[in-house]
Amino acid sequence: MDNNFSLSALIRSRRSTRRFQEQSVSRALLLQCVEAARLAPSAENSQPWRFFIVDDPACKDTLAQKAFGGVFLPTRWAAAAPVLVVLCLQTDSIAKRMASKVAGTTFSMIDIGIAGEHFCLQAEELGLGTCWIGWFDKKGAQQALKLDKRFQPVIMLAVGYPLDSNRRPGKRKDLDEICFFNQGEKPPHLPPS
Amino acid sequence: MDNNFSLSALIRSRRSTRRFQEQSVSRALLLQCVEAARLAPSAENSQPWRFFIVDDPACKDTLAQKAFGGVFLPTRWAAAAPVLVVLCLQTDSIAKRMASKVAGTTFSMIDIGIAGEHFCLQAEELGLGTCWIGWFDKKGAQQALKLDKRFQPVIMLAVGYPLDSNRRPGKRKDLDEICFFNQGEKPPHLPPS
Repeated sequence: MDNNFSLSALIRSRRSTRRFQEQSVSRALLLQCVEAARLAPSAENSQPWRFFIVDDPACKDTLAQKAFGGVFLPTRWAAAAPVLVVLCLQTDSIAKRMASKVAGTTFSMIDIGIAGEHFCLQAEELGLGTCWIGWFDKKGAQQALKLDKRFQPVIMLAVGYPLDSNRRPGKRKDLDEICFFNQGEKPPHLPPS
Repeated sequence: MDNNFSLSALIRSRRSTRRFQEQSVSRALLLQCVEAARLAPSAENSQPWRFFIVDDPACKDTLAQKAFGGVFLPTRWAAAAPVLVVLCLQTDSIAKRMASKVAGTTFSMIDIGIAGEHFCLQAEELGLGTCWIGWFDKKGAQQALKLDKRFQPVIMLAVGYPLDSNRRPGKRKDLDEICFFNQGEKPPHLPPS
């Protein structure tokens, strides 16, 4: 492990990875990523996330065919990733759906975002690249994996060793476009890092 | 900085923090947390998150009164945090709403989860405690901060230096309850960490 490691360095080095080496990914590493996700916080500690990890080539082909057809063809590139993860929501309890309705927020989607990003940051630390994929056929994914109806596919993650050549940083809004203090005060400028 | 730092250690040490020291939090640290969130990935790189950081005691009182009243009284404890962050969604573009409708997923909620957790993990690394708060009066928060209607409050974060005595670990489901391979295969057991 790099002794100069810090979270901010990890976050700065993370890229959405869309091109991968052919090398397979060991289940031990994949499970370390799920372990990071397992410890994530969630609304009322409901832990609604379920990770379906597809690393068998035949199963991955079936999934890619069913999930990336028709209008979803633009994400077909993900079929070349050595691993696809279908991140599912375990159907909410009635109590949780009621709370979401009163509060006006779909908590379970936020929970999925938190846990999924724990997975992705852990992958980054292990030298793996990931990409979040929202654009896929959910019914197709459900069929391909023969998922029980309790599990609703929400989002996918492509996982593998990155081809470095394609790891460009994404552009981001400036800090003062996304951050305000109290009743709209602009933030002081950050010292250069 | 601790040279033995690793993400997995950071994730294991993180707790939802509901009791805080009175000590205030410097804006430099808060901005480091927003900087971590700024670099988060989002659907189509839309970066829909806006962080309204409330560290002025009078403003925080107004916010607490408007946001934690009536049915939302159970989260009134958060008023004692030195900082409250109201994490807002910048209203989606029509194109993005259409994409969410076709794909059947509210991408912006996942994006908020990802960016918010970047904030919380960065806070943890800096010695700060955080707690996600979904249960609050959004209209009240909007009024208290005189928010433009483009900004929809989604979730809040309480931030401050933790009182260690209350930092118990939350229970989590076992790995084999949340992780499956291919068409439902159970995961191999993780080596003890």
